[in-house]
Amino acid sequence: MRATVTIRDVARLAEVHPGTVSRALNEQTRTLVNEETAERVLRAAEALGYRPNPIARGLKTNRSYTVGVLIPDMANPLFPPIMRGIEDRLGGAGYTALIVNTDNDAERERSHMDAMRARQVDGFIAATARLDTELLADVAAGGAPMVLVNRSLEDGSLAAVTVDDRQGIRLAVNHVAGLGHQHIGHVGGPQNLSTGHLRYLGFREAMADLGLAAPAEQIAFADAFTEAEGQRACAELLDRARGVTAVVAANDRLAMGCYDALEARGLACPDDVSVTGFNDMPFVDRLHPPLTSVRVPQREIGKMAADLLLSQLRDGSRDARQILLEPTLTVRGSTAPPRG
Amino acid sequence: MRATVTIRDVARLAEVHPGTVSRALNEQTRTLVNEETAERVLRAAEALGYRPNPIARGLKTNRSYTVGVLIPDMANPLFPPIMRGIEDRLGGAGYTALIVNTDNDAERERSHMDAMRARQVDGFIAATARLDTELLADVAAGGAPMVLVNRSLEDGSLAAVTVDDRQGIRLAVNHVAGLGHQHIGHVGGPQNLSTGHLRYLGFREAMADLGLAAPAEQIAFADAFTEAEGQRACAELLDRARGVTAVVAANDRLAMGCYDALEARGLACPDDVSVTGFNDMPFVDRLHPPLTSVRVPQREIGKMAADLLLSQLRDGSRDARQILLEPTLTVRGSTAPPRG
Repeated sequence: MRATVTIRDVARLAEVHPGTVSRALNEQTRTLVNEETAERVLRAAEALGYRPNPIARGLKTNRSYTVGVLIPDMANPLFPPIMRGIEDRLGGAGYTALIVNTDNDAERERSHMDAMRARQVDGFIAATARLDTELLADVAAGGAPMVLVNRSLEDGSLAAVTVDDRQGIRLAVNHVAGLGHQHIGHVGGPQNLSTGHLRYLGFREAMADLGLAAPAEQIAFADAFTEAEGQRACAELLDRARGVTAVVAANDRLAMGCYDALEARGLACPDDVSVTGFNDMPFVDRLHPPLTSVRVPQREIGKMAADLLLSQLRDGSRDARQILLEPTLTVRGSTAPPRG
Repeated sequence: MRATVTIRDVARLAEVHPGTVSRALNEQTRTLVNEETAERVLRAAEALGYRPNPIARGLKTNRSYTVGVLIPDMANPLFPPIMRGIEDRLGGAGYTALIVNTDNDAERERSHMDAMRARQVDGFIAATARLDTELLADVAAGGAPMVLVNRSLEDGSLAAVTVDDRQGIRLAVNHVAGLGHQHIGHVGGPQNLSTGHLRYLGFREAMADLGLAAPAEQIAFADAFTEAEGQRACAELLDRARGVTAVVAANDRLAMGCYDALEARGLACPDDVSVTGFNDMPFVDRLHPPLTSVRVPQREIGKMAADLLLSQLRDGSRDARQILLEPTLTVRGSTAPPRG
């Protein structure tokens, strides 16, 4: 049996992007493609005997081959690799990702989402930390497929790709405990964000499993995932719990703030206090000292999310699969055995 | 005379985003807005006596209130602040920015551009380092307004906002020369990119104006703006020109590569060799040593580009204004007087 000819085969022969093939083969959108290119595509499709796959083309005939991607903050270095993963997969299937930046602002989120729905995107990937439940209900009622990234719904009603935050913090706690630390502090993130809350719970659990005490004075919360808040919370923690020899921070920017708090009181990292981060952002290997950090498979998250969405677009299902990815730990110079 | 009531006044009273006001007031798009919200907007508009400004609403009646923004690489930390500036201005005027990532790939660029044209965006802002001239001609022929960012056309036929690259390098050269350095090297970027080429020309000019020699052995080019290429080029330069006491790099990532090259041969920065970067990326103040770098007004670039586009959308003109912004220098620990 001969393998089915796909849109990608046509794209390869015509030396164009699969999205261009989609548009050239669709009479409604052909005028958008350069005339010479459209002819090349049509010739390639004929040469290969390409027939649009009725399932792949979906039930909707007026598919736009665009997907809306909502991200909360472009300046957060977490998102570029996630986007890269999403685009690797979507691009290969002939889709264009239209990205909007929501700043975690409810009104902006709704406005941008409405604008994309008006532009008839085929589906959504939402990487926003919070998302209006009313808005989600609207989208679900409208029948647009949607996949969540870095957060999930409690009732599991929408497909979601998340990272095991508790497990990530457990890796950091086990690492410093393995070096001999017993008095371990936590600089936590905002507790109204799921990442901040789950990492705090992970810290408590990991400490309990090791039989180590984690009294309230060894924990301080930042009001935002910023260096300034990390510095403030770490200073508070050092004031209250003087015996602490290691600090597990809820993300890398908070960990950088811990560096500042230590420096401000003449303490050395890791000689006096070890510090760990979370996310393994670009360039944390160039900090002084290089930061030990929990690594999240960001590109993989993006690929998985795109795969889930493409599968919904292909078969018209609203499969609400929940995927939980495992983090790893990258050990660098910011952690060492306690003095003495 | 009473000031004119704007869409922003209505948004403020109704406590919604200006884009939501646009959609709620337009009968064609009202159904996209939550019913209760739409009513609140209509009441607010009535209370304030708001009348859509016929010029602001434009000559096209079916405006989409979306703008396509093409960026070459989301992972480049230059772009988030530029996007922030673009969105500050577009959002205030009720527009949504639909962002696509082109990876500087010609086929992807065309495909994404076609997808956005099919979604009927009102205009484009393109921050891609290269852009197919055929594609530009297509867009121009289609009448869509477009503003270029970080690059301009030689014939000045499209509006553009750029930064004075030569002046930026001159600031760096003058700074290290002012510290007493005479043997100054340049680790240049790829010469097929305008930023790489203009910064190299700026280096030659600034050295000549100071009466300092800049022989070919004091200049080495990287094949890409990466740390690895910066290290390779800097090592080559140090081999050829042993008397060099300062290196002016064409961007921050190349400067980080210079740090690596110095460390590999046991040289200290700034004690043995001073180093400067370009872009003043996030976290370069946390490198060891903190990097002296040319600062580019990125957010301002984004705001200016959005203003130029909004002005074209308002009056239907195709004003090809060329705006050149001035960089500044941020001095940190990577530059010091030469030994002795």
